[in-house]
Amino acid sequence: MPLDIVSSSKAHGGTQGVYRHHSRSTDTVMTFAVFTPPQAETGRVPVLWYLSGLTCSHQNAMDKAEYRKAAAEHGVMIVLPDTSPRGAGVPDEAGNWQFGSGAGFYLDATREPYAANYRMYSYVTDELPGYLATHFPADMRRQSIMGHSMGGHGALTIVLKNPDRYRSASALAPIVQPTTADWSKGAFDKYLGVGSKAQREYDATLLIQDGRRYPEFYVDQGTADEFLDTGLRPTLLRDACEKAGIRLTLNMREGYDHSYNFISTFMGDHVAYHAGHLHR
Amino acid sequence: MPLDIVSSSKAHGGTQGVYRHHSRSTDTVMTFAVFTPPQAETGRVPVLWYLSGLTCSHQNAMDKAEYRKAAAEHGVMIVLPDTSPRGAGVPDEAGNWQFGSGAGFYLDATREPYAANYRMYSYVTDELPGYLATHFPADMRRQSIMGHSMGGHGALTIVLKNPDRYRSASALAPIVQPTTADWSKGAFDKYLGVGSKAQREYDATLLIQDGRRYPEFYVDQGTADEFLDTGLRPTLLRDACEKAGIRLTLNMREGYDHSYNFISTFMGDHVAYHAGHLHR
Repeated sequence: MPLDIVSSSKAHGGTQGVYRHHSRSTDTVMTFAVFTPPQAETGRVPVLWYLSGLTCSHQNAMDKAEYRKAAAEHGVMIVLPDTSPRGAGVPDEAGNWQFGSGAGFYLDATREPYAANYRMYSYVTDELPGYLATHFPADMRRQSIMGHSMGGHGALTIVLKNPDRYRSASALAPIVQPTTADWSKGAFDKYLGVGSKAQREYDATLLIQDGRRYPEFYVDQGTADEFLDTGLRPTLLRDACEKAGIRLTLNMREGYDHSYNFISTFMGDHVAYHAGHLHR
Repeated sequence: MPLDIVSSSKAHGGTQGVYRHHSRSTDTVMTFAVFTPPQAETGRVPVLWYLSGLTCSHQNAMDKAEYRKAAAEHGVMIVLPDTSPRGAGVPDEAGNWQFGSGAGFYLDATREPYAANYRMYSYVTDELPGYLATHFPADMRRQSIMGHSMGGHGALTIVLKNPDRYRSASALAPIVQPTTADWSKGAFDKYLGVGSKAQREYDATLLIQDGRRYPEFYVDQGTADEFLDTGLRPTLLRDACEKAGIRLTLNMREGYDHSYNFISTFMGDHVAYHAGHLHR
């Protein structure tokens, strides 16, 4: 499984790199970013996955999420996957930012013509961890996961399905019930089929209803987020966690919107939260 | 002098805004970014100018320079001007990243057809301060200035010509002798005339040779900077400062390149340095 280095640059004492490889999960070339903290010079370091939101690639958070300072201080590797397969031959919908390129929703599609490429769940939980273990000074026994918006949905659903693999999980403005939210329902119907049982496997609140558990979620949500009431609806997660006995820290952040200004403001808190679990 | 708000978003407790206005200096519409720290809610705050490098607009540093956390902690407003006039009617050279759009060099051009628009020195030192005083909670008695690469050149030359106006000056990988550097000499010849006396007015090392003084410069420079030996040449600044009795802190940063990974790594130090002078 060869890996190409697209770029590599010293940052905050560590290395910010961008890497490219052919993915067997998506059957496309995939690009991802890794920040390797300075502590990796003397041993393997724990891994924090950051899953990005709709329309983003690895690049947006790499440029704007301001995670490197905290990651260098805490000795945590940050991994930023892309949000979908891309490229010639991948079925896409030009002009629809809620489906196709940039909108993989961290699921494995079951419906044609999407099932061959849109397999971001397998990519993030199975294939890419293999690359980290092989090519990077990553201690894969210590992983945590977080994400923003669609990536928050990804982080929550992935830990609910793999609770023993991740030491902690957090989210910034997550989509908590994508099967009914206005900006994700259409994609779920196309990737997984209208009314399919598979949809429940990729919906955080429904996974909790169906008995999946995780000890604790740490969530920040801006009160001025333009998608709060229609796409995000954190109270649905709060209700599901209360019923299930899952600890939820839900910080409503006064005046913050959905942008990277919100993400970068609270990123340091999230890295510190995960570092507390990863270095325990 | 009306001002349009292009965007405004809460960040690190303050406000990251983008603004647009018609500039009398450049006779074009100009866009700039301002981060207003939370301390401005209770009074005017000091101002740190950040001048960007070649090819950049206000946007690059706004996205990637990671100044907001430190600025919010220290109660400093950060102002990011564009690097040149832009738009229809502005003479430009398509494809030349070292001249024209994105390459204003913080000078007032004297040669046609550039003299009518390329007046970034006046814009940054005279016109834009007026907007800050009028439209923002800025304490214009407390200003400092910094910049990267071409913007480092801007910061150094502007304080040498206006030493009483700025409380401190710093630079990241500055162009210290643009009249002879490979990537700036051509622009200086076109904006100001080949061999013109005006060129000395916009060259930090020559201004120092000609008797201009400033108490102290704080400079960071990456050792892996791809432009170190041909475009930047910090030893020329060190020699000029030594002869002139100007205190120079020149930190050679092992392994850092010319990118925003370098800038963002040391931005917090620079904001803290200026805050020390601005809050004195």
